[in-house]
Amino acid sequence: MQDLRDRLTRITHLGQAAAILEWDMETYMPEGGADARASQVATLRSMAHELLTANETVTLLENARPESDIDLDLVRIVKRDVAKATKVPSKLVAAMAEAAGRAKGAWQKARATNDFPLFAPHLERIVDLSRQHADALGYADQPYDALLDQYEEGASTRQVADVFEKVRLELVPIVQAIQAAAPLDESPVHRAFPLDRQWSFGLDMVQRMGYDLHHGRQDVSTHPFSTSFSISDVRITTRSEEHFFNPAFFGTLHEAGHAMYEQGIDRALEGLPLADGTSLGIHESQSRMWENLVGRSRAFWTYAWPLARQTFPESLANTTQEDFYRAINAVKPSTIRVEADEVTYNLHIMLRFELEQEIISGRIAIKDLPEAWNERMVSWLGVRPESDTEGVLQDIHWSLGAIGYFPTYALGNLMSVQLFEAARRDLGDLEGPVSRGDFAPLLGWLRTNVHQWGRRRSADEILRSATGSPLSAEPWLAYARAKFGNLYGF
Amino acid sequence: MQDLRDRLTRITHLGQAAAILEWDMETYMPEGGADARASQVATLRSMAHELLTANETVTLLENARPESDIDLDLVRIVKRDVAKATKVPSKLVAAMAEAAGRAKGAWQKARATNDFPLFAPHLERIVDLSRQHADALGYADQPYDALLDQYEEGASTRQVADVFEKVRLELVPIVQAIQAAAPLDESPVHRAFPLDRQWSFGLDMVQRMGYDLHHGRQDVSTHPFSTSFSISDVRITTRSEEHFFNPAFFGTLHEAGHAMYEQGIDRALEGLPLADGTSLGIHESQSRMWENLVGRSRAFWTYAWPLARQTFPESLANTTQEDFYRAINAVKPSTIRVEADEVTYNLHIMLRFELEQEIISGRIAIKDLPEAWNERMVSWLGVRPESDTEGVLQDIHWSLGAIGYFPTYALGNLMSVQLFEAARRDLGDLEGPVSRGDFAPLLGWLRTNVHQWGRRRSADEILRSATGSPLSAEPWLAYARAKFGNLYGF
Repeated sequence: MQDLRDRLTRITHLGQAAAILEWDMETYMPEGGADARASQVATLRSMAHELLTANETVTLLENARPESDIDLDLVRIVKRDVAKATKVPSKLVAAMAEAAGRAKGAWQKARATNDFPLFAPHLERIVDLSRQHADALGYADQPYDALLDQYEEGASTRQVADVFEKVRLELVPIVQAIQAAAPLDESPVHRAFPLDRQWSFGLDMVQRMGYDLHHGRQDVSTHPFSTSFSISDVRITTRSEEHFFNPAFFGTLHEAGHAMYEQGIDRALEGLPLADGTSLGIHESQSRMWENLVGRSRAFWTYAWPLARQTFPESLANTTQEDFYRAINAVKPSTIRVEADEVTYNLHIMLRFELEQEIISGRIAIKDLPEAWNERMVSWLGVRPESDTEGVLQDIHWSLGAIGYFPTYALGNLMSVQLFEAARRDLGDLEGPVSRGDFAPLLGWLRTNVHQWGRRRSADEILRSATGSPLSAEPWLAYARAKFGNLYGF
Repeated sequence: MQDLRDRLTRITHLGQAAAILEWDMETYMPEGGADARASQVATLRSMAHELLTANETVTLLENARPESDIDLDLVRIVKRDVAKATKVPSKLVAAMAEAAGRAKGAWQKARATNDFPLFAPHLERIVDLSRQHADALGYADQPYDALLDQYEEGASTRQVADVFEKVRLELVPIVQAIQAAAPLDESPVHRAFPLDRQWSFGLDMVQRMGYDLHHGRQDVSTHPFSTSFSISDVRITTRSEEHFFNPAFFGTLHEAGHAMYEQGIDRALEGLPLADGTSLGIHESQSRMWENLVGRSRAFWTYAWPLARQTFPESLANTTQEDFYRAINAVKPSTIRVEADEVTYNLHIMLRFELEQEIISGRIAIKDLPEAWNERMVSWLGVRPESDTEGVLQDIHWSLGAIGYFPTYALGNLMSVQLFEAARRDLGDLEGPVSRGDFAPLLGWLRTNVHQWGRRRSADEILRSATGSPLSAEPWLAYARAKFGNLYGF
């Protein structure tokens, strides 16, 4: 068992080292270092993969005598990891890496020049390799199950589709009601907010929420992200716009939500492959909870408003707390996912989820994708992209070969409300403490019910043990109806 | 041959990844991340060591069919690396790592409380293990040869001792003459220099010298260093004191000198173990050349003085270029090596070099070390440490197990002048271009004669091919006599 743990720790260290190299690429690396760095990361990732799938690992797993509950989980979960890692021929992995390398360049060009046909053959190739990938991994019902399982272990296409369908059927009319209502005034978040004060305000606030800078830090990057180098070193990045309050502030809350999850994993798992988020959906539930359920709530701004006024006296002088609350919660259907509000975001995701299934199953041809995209945008969101650059070409994911990833964003939204409501049920009152700047009850509840487990509990186990139910659309829908009904008067 | 190159590239990537993790430790890592980070670095270093000494590597080396001069050098040098890495039993390596771990803590405590007896048993243990280390490595003449060879491959104790002896016999009287002369006014470098402007002035200057920020960057750390992650990513760090111009400025030149060496290695060696400095002495010759032979010269300040005046108008208003030149070149014997000037620095090193030989050979007992240290300080430098904290306990090196490292500092000083004089001989005029801010001739000469070779040429080969002579004391002595005779009028 000790030999197994030592071996798995080595593999974990290789992955953590790769994460550090990648973080540096996005934050501090001089431009000229990119090629050598890509090779270094590839070496570390290959070595980790080889060590994981080596015969010695399999033998150690077969002969391991677990000495604790953690050991039992370790053997169980790593056996599954090895099985998955072994199923996909390295030739296929290499083919996908090569195809993605070319597709990414083509996508960048196609997006810049609004030229979908330029990208189409690359996407065709990615889809073909994804089907082979799904076949190699195996699936119970349909190929897309295997792709989804890479990011959201244990989820099935059918289950996710059922839940998303419920959300969509209620959400489209909600969006229509919002569009028919008087728009909220967004101007309070579009004044001048000095960049250095945005930086310190966001960082100060996430520290108050519980993000631990003794085991973390914040840096600048073009695309914000969070990354974990160990349970004791979990970092976030942010970017700021001077004339828009939301990206830096809510981005920081979002990334700190991810980071607090990783910081909250049981220290006994340090160095083991269990010390990671259990699924992207659960991960996103943590980021969305702090960003939206806390950060965009009236209770939070009851506490934070005086601090914000103090930090940005010029920009917020003639604004009331309620005006500000409304501005940060404005809903405005648009064609661009990354700019979407809390309500319409899910529809952007569901559109991608449906189209992914359709291109993988072959029900829709690649060449017909732009029109299918645009039609669904019109019928669900009431907006039509003016170009493919604003439509089917807007996201990088497919060019990277990441088909099956998108649904985890919306799953995270749904899970965040399920978990939040369970916390409210257990704690009696959430809004009271939050409105006094006391985030400890919520964070403590998350530590106990979600964070500490790392990968030891699956997403489904987390949901069932914490909330009593499997994945469900209803809590999010009730939340959205109440919050946005109040804001928009329907 | 390709299999060998691929394997060696993996090993190189592991080492480079470890260097990135170590750089982050010194620059950005949150405090709480230290333990996990130490384990990650240990994993990468162990894996690199295991891959290097594995049977597969030996077999590949034996069967390799070199296809180029680089291949020939690669096989030759890596065979030597493997032989050395194999000679030392891993039990001894582990014992030294453990002893050093304890010794470092004891040293910190002993230094803080001026308690040499607390450190003595740890140093005893380090010396004992160093002797075993030397025995394992083997040596021609004396155990210290093997220790020295770890840092300055190919150097022998006898040769170094002969050269140092020549320097010392002339240097002690020079120091005495300086002490008898009127001291230079150091006040111009002790005014207030705003930290941000020190930062940008130093960085601007090293870029003009040739440090390439497209393949490098500067960060802050407590102890300045330079580090290479690949030929295309070589970084420096610096620290600044508001009321002392020298540490940041000359520290930046020093580290950039190291970094320009690594940036100048032939790109064909990228990813191979040949892409490294050939010895610590040669490395130090590059840092010292830019710091002292360029940075502390009249020619350089002819160019840089107007820029300095413009950058620090308040601090330098009533100073002349000559006053400033004299201030940055003031010689003042002191007990502390890291604060030593260009002249007395070598004596600090020679003292350590002699004492190291004496404790390794057993000619001097550990308990008698403080007094031996202090006596030699008095007779060579005319100063007596007021405590062991200011004396034998001042340096971290021995506590880390690094016996044999110190001499490379003084070797670097000697080599820097040998190389500089050879460049002057080849180029005809060095001062002219430098006084116009044209550093390209010197850098070009170093690229051709030193940098590009990486480890393909040994320190001795570099010296002989570039200067026509082996290591020699005379050029440095002639330089010191001329420069400081002029400054101090002897």
